[in-house]
Amino acid sequence: MAVRYENTHEVAYYECDVNQRMTFPALIGVAVKASEEQSDSLQRGSDYVHALGLGWVITNYQMFITRLPEVGEVITIATQAMQYNKYFCYRNFWLTDEAGNELVRIEAVFVLMDMENRKMASVPEAVIAPYESEKIKRIKRYPKVEKPEVPTGLEYRVRFYDIDSNQHVNNSVYFNWMIDVLGYDFLTTHTPTYVNIRFDKEVEYGEMIESFSQVVAGDTGIETRHAIKRGEDVCCEANFHWDSK
Amino acid sequence: MAVRYENTHEVAYYECDVNQRMTFPALIGVAVKASEEQSDSLQRGSDYVHALGLGWVITNYQMFITRLPEVGEVITIATQAMQYNKYFCYRNFWLTDEAGNELVRIEAVFVLMDMENRKMASVPEAVIAPYESEKIKRIKRYPKVEKPEVPTGLEYRVRFYDIDSNQHVNNSVYFNWMIDVLGYDFLTTHTPTYVNIRFDKEVEYGEMIESFSQVVAGDTGIETRHAIKRGEDVCCEANFHWDSK
Repeated sequence: MAVRYENTHEVAYYECDVNQRMTFPALIGVAVKASEEQSDSLQRGSDYVHALGLGWVITNYQMFITRLPEVGEVITIATQAMQYNKYFCYRNFWLTDEAGNELVRIEAVFVLMDMENRKMASVPEAVIAPYESEKIKRIKRYPKVEKPEVPTGLEYRVRFYDIDSNQHVNNSVYFNWMIDVLGYDFLTTHTPTYVNIRFDKEVEYGEMIESFSQVVAGDTGIETRHAIKRGEDVCCEANFHWDSK
Repeated sequence: MAVRYENTHEVAYYECDVNQRMTFPALIGVAVKASEEQSDSLQRGSDYVHALGLGWVITNYQMFITRLPEVGEVITIATQAMQYNKYFCYRNFWLTDEAGNELVRIEAVFVLMDMENRKMASVPEAVIAPYESEKIKRIKRYPKVEKPEVPTGLEYRVRFYDIDSNQHVNNSVYFNWMIDVLGYDFLTTHTPTYVNIRFDKEVEYGEMIESFSQVVAGDTGIETRHAIKRGEDVCCEANFHWDSK
């Protein structure tokens, strides 16, 4: 059984949108912080990984949203590195309310990147052992991400505050670009229930990206399909499911 | 002596920039949160103020920065509503490190706005009394904000995550627009020591603004002069002082 780590977090007003619900960047922020704290507690923090010439990168998230956390609420964030194979590590996060009800479940895929050639590296036993994850042979398949079929998107320039300590755009920023194009009317009348997002290519400071989106009536209700492109390169793709409020 | 309120905050990685120092929006976020908590503790929270048809608006900040808080540091945020006159309330914030050293001091000017006509309202005794602020006659003068003398700026569109529960751009977002135009090279080789910022006009969702900036050699070292304009309207102006790193 994989080692479990948990902490608590009081949701601040500045982590919430106009609906008084936690934003996606804030959700990703508190989740990743919990996983970093677990790594530190197991002496496998970023210093240890960087000393091997490696760095963790998140390539996919699936998010199952029962209810988004609200301003002032104290949530618990629990996380476990569930399984791993030669290249992929599968980590789950559970955000729960004070009564223990699940608010958001996140299934994330982490890979190790060689910092020099920026290619994927295999996972060393010494890095992964303390998490007591299950070793598996198979590579998990993620649901397909449907592409938006629209000719144009909205342009965004990467800002100074969008990049993190490795000089690349932080994963949470893609959510900002994807959410923003949906517009005020959509975002104040719909609430997200599911997200499937894939990060394909890194974006750097000063680059321009285009955020494409399409609202479609899917099998499960309203679905939005998203792509973040730099020229012809698809950097990130996602599908969101929504309920009407 | 005005009632003092304090809380503590652990600086998260997602509140910091590429320099691993707390961003201006995050600094403003934790400061304003402390003042809201004080108001709640004195039964003068936003519900109380809204019931009177009023809302607090911040019109000015002066920030005196000894050192910006770093990732992982636990800081203490103390605040007192120092003084008030008919229209203006003067509130200070002190951010200190674990050894009690002052990191940042903020002097803020708050006004009450009539929510219906969006004009400044006089400060009712019932609202202000519990803070035990000193009543003064005079209106404090703020140092002049020098204007940037440049023909063009960079354009920004107001995003969904930029607006707060009153539908207007949150004050912290102006810092994002002002900082971003200075560029990566400047921002990784300089550290801010002083800010004087004035908020003049509200900006709404979907509007475009232009962020003007000029770097000048001032009396106190390097100074940057900023204006955020919507067409010909100046919405916000600021001067920053910087040290070379």
